[in-house]
Amino acid sequence: MERVAIIGASMTQFGQRDEWIRELLAEAGSACLEDAAVDPTDVDHLYVSNMASGEFEGQTGVVNALVHDLGAVPAYTERVDQTSSSGGAGIYAAWRSVASGASDMTLLVGGEKMTHRTTAEATDVIASLTHPCEYKHGVTLPSFAGLTARHYLERFDAPRESLGKVAAKNHKNGVDNPNAQFQKEVDLETILESPIVADPLRLYDFCPITDGSAALMLCPESVAAEYTDDYVVISGIDGATDTHVVHERPDPTIMGGVVESGDGAFEMADREPDDVDVAELHDMFTILEFLQMEGLGFAEQGEAWKLVEEGYTDRDGELPINTSGGLKSKGHPLGASGVAQGVEIYEQLMGEAGPRQVDADVGLCCNVGGFGNCVITTIMEAAA
Amino acid sequence: MERVAIIGASMTQFGQRDEWIRELLAEAGSACLEDAAVDPTDVDHLYVSNMASGEFEGQTGVVNALVHDLGAVPAYTERVDQTSSSGGAGIYAAWRSVASGASDMTLLVGGEKMTHRTTAEATDVIASLTHPCEYKHGVTLPSFAGLTARHYLERFDAPRESLGKVAAKNHKNGVDNPNAQFQKEVDLETILESPIVADPLRLYDFCPITDGSAALMLCPESVAAEYTDDYVVISGIDGATDTHVVHERPDPTIMGGVVESGDGAFEMADREPDDVDVAELHDMFTILEFLQMEGLGFAEQGEAWKLVEEGYTDRDGELPINTSGGLKSKGHPLGASGVAQGVEIYEQLMGEAGPRQVDADVGLCCNVGGFGNCVITTIMEAAA
Repeated sequence: MERVAIIGASMTQFGQRDEWIRELLAEAGSACLEDAAVDPTDVDHLYVSNMASGEFEGQTGVVNALVHDLGAVPAYTERVDQTSSSGGAGIYAAWRSVASGASDMTLLVGGEKMTHRTTAEATDVIASLTHPCEYKHGVTLPSFAGLTARHYLERFDAPRESLGKVAAKNHKNGVDNPNAQFQKEVDLETILESPIVADPLRLYDFCPITDGSAALMLCPESVAAEYTDDYVVISGIDGATDTHVVHERPDPTIMGGVVESGDGAFEMADREPDDVDVAELHDMFTILEFLQMEGLGFAEQGEAWKLVEEGYTDRDGELPINTSGGLKSKGHPLGASGVAQGVEIYEQLMGEAGPRQVDADVGLCCNVGGFGNCVITTIMEAAA
Repeated sequence: MERVAIIGASMTQFGQRDEWIRELLAEAGSACLEDAAVDPTDVDHLYVSNMASGEFEGQTGVVNALVHDLGAVPAYTERVDQTSSSGGAGIYAAWRSVASGASDMTLLVGGEKMTHRTTAEATDVIASLTHPCEYKHGVTLPSFAGLTARHYLERFDAPRESLGKVAAKNHKNGVDNPNAQFQKEVDLETILESPIVADPLRLYDFCPITDGSAALMLCPESVAAEYTDDYVVISGIDGATDTHVVHERPDPTIMGGVVESGDGAFEMADREPDDVDVAELHDMFTILEFLQMEGLGFAEQGEAWKLVEEGYTDRDGELPINTSGGLKSKGHPLGASGVAQGVEIYEQLMGEAGPRQVDADVGLCCNVGGFGNCVITTIMEAAA
């Protein structure tokens, strides 16, 4: 089967934006069309990754608004929702549209507009994805993160500081990302003394609430060659789920969806974890970066914290993780986040990451929905 | 490329249901697993067609709930939203999952829970898909239908009764569908004297608000043979959009998305409109049945009403349309409707339609979102 290429990428400024979801999607979509030098009328399929435009903004039918705003009618369009991993699911949907032969040019735009709602309102929409048997006891996503972090630190004898170092690293990376919500370093002391949210996790262990949008252009490799000599291919991609009731999982430090989707993506790409040069992981909570490093095979169980302490995942380390700043400093506009992970890996593989650039031929992104309820892992490679 | 087969189908009772969206989806999903004799652990991908569980019920993450409730973890799962055509979009998404090689067994479940909300609340959620430049003037979907019906009747010199006859026919068909919301005949006089909603359209020109769910099981044809000798194949499928601003369309009686998606599906199937033996069209409003008959090539422009008058689209006519009762009498639970169209065509082609059975080898369904903003056309054939 012919490989699926990525020939363009874009993202908007992430942060607190005045624009509504329609405008945010159109901004990233237009920029991606321009980046790929694709005429809107040449787009066959348009996917929109978005969790909750109706709940956040009272706006449904965003796909039809976008296909109109971009001038891409009569392109087929569809909204993809998989909660916080909607963006990764969008990459998978866009990949399938090309791999199935249904589309020769697919534009994926992910976005979310959230900051006009209070934190309580926004997190309540997100919390409604949890199972009622846990939700009714008030165990929402930050609570799961706190419980899991406590368990991890005690069981693997990891210092509390190791979690803080994830936040410090990602904030440091974000300084060089002009589209990041927070472009500032935060020192370890500030992180470790910030207000407790879900013990032992503190404010700086959590990503912010964010507005923003990101986009990718996908097509068959044979079509890519008509547009450019330099492009990226998706060599492996897979998605998987874990139990909806989080406390049913046999080991709270193992996210089955990460393991399964990672295995599937590595098998498809015929790659090993050691082959990966740069990765974007879903650091919605700092503890998640450890769990994904271990679930994807970058570290043994209970050992990821040591690699972070050693600087292995720093930008100049062996495996730079979240060079974009991650969700932690770049921000987490739900439907956009997984797409923006793809944008960072695309730019790294294309050599377009500016001051964030690392030496990379193979990149990976892992996008997590719920508390590992659904996960997408994507492996990309520079086209040789 | 190997063809995609459908090996199982199910739908719940449509109507006013006490169950919530989670339960409705699980009911159809379980029944479909049973109908196809597929073990839940053999499902690779699970798609859920649903427009607005968050807006209607405050419930997000329905895909993870369903994969859990069916015992299908770690199957990949994704919610597909394309407003009223989410079900048809789900068939297309399920088709792509198999055609791309990503899944060897895909379960599609469409559903919506609406009747716990008032009609005003439910239609306001739906109205939020329209373009603000029209919405702010109060021009919602029923208004477009009224304006279009008036234009059609006057321009093509069609009698008002012809629209009523669409409603009467579909109600008559629904009598024999045990899952239909309304299993009763309605005479033409009652229809023509019902209260005006959007002149010239009256109450009986509109589909009801409905709870319900429907499901289909898709796999490659080679896998289908492991489960059954009798199955259906999707021989053609395509989706397309039209302008988001309805008044920008050059001819209000031509829905570009119907024409484009129909052309694409017929081309893929290597079929002509004359080859179709039975069709399910999206009769959310009676006038839409005329527009789809014409857009799909079953009638010349301005002539569909004559075919309805002649009985051409009756169950014993040349081309039976909406043998299920259509949205008009079966009901219209948004995300379920397009899937339920597929269920009816599957049952007709399998010879499982009971008292509704017609003689058919080739069937078509057309699912319309918004006011023709997005449309999916699917052609199915009995496997020879």
